[in-house]
Amino acid sequence: MPRVVVDVMLKPEILDPQGQAVANALPRLGVSDVSSVRIGRRVEIEFTGEPDLDRAREIADKLLANPVIEDFTLRVVEMDDTEGARP
Amino acid sequence: MPRVVVDVMLKPEILDPQGQAVANALPRLGVSDVSSVRIGRRVEIEFTGEPDLDRAREIADKLLANPVIEDFTLRVVEMDDTEGARP
Repeated sequence: MPRVVVDVMLKPEILDPQGQAVANALPRLGVSDVSSVRIGRRVEIEFTGEPDLDRAREIADKLLANPVIEDFTLRVVEMDDTEGARP
Repeated sequence: MPRVVVDVMLKPEILDPQGQAVANALPRLGVSDVSSVRIGRRVEIEFTGEPDLDRAREIADKLLANPVIEDFTLRVVEMDDTEGARP
């Protein structure tokens, strides 16, 4: 079943203390080749019928993102095949 | 510059009150064709050199995901072209 995925990230000029905290913890794990970590939200919206990008954009605008500090992108993802590799 | 994107989502069997709150607000917006909303985290890891999936997997395992209640997937994303449509 396809879903609409909305990725909400802080705008690049906004400080991300949560990501910074992860980045600061990395040297203790022996990781020294990471230059930046940014943490945002991934929202999966499942429709009863066909996925509706315009509807999802309206939902993201009104409920999911704060336009003052956040940007979002939308896309339709087929959830049967995973987007990335599982560990 | 490519980054590793880690998507951390609650396991399907774990209740997601945040997503449920969004889903419950939708009828007030006149949206009635959404069956489910799930909210997770999207983490973008930028490396000083080439993106390193194994390293990112180690970071996700140790710092980003709680394996009791969350699953994560990893992938390399070229950040110059956006993954989804901007509104």
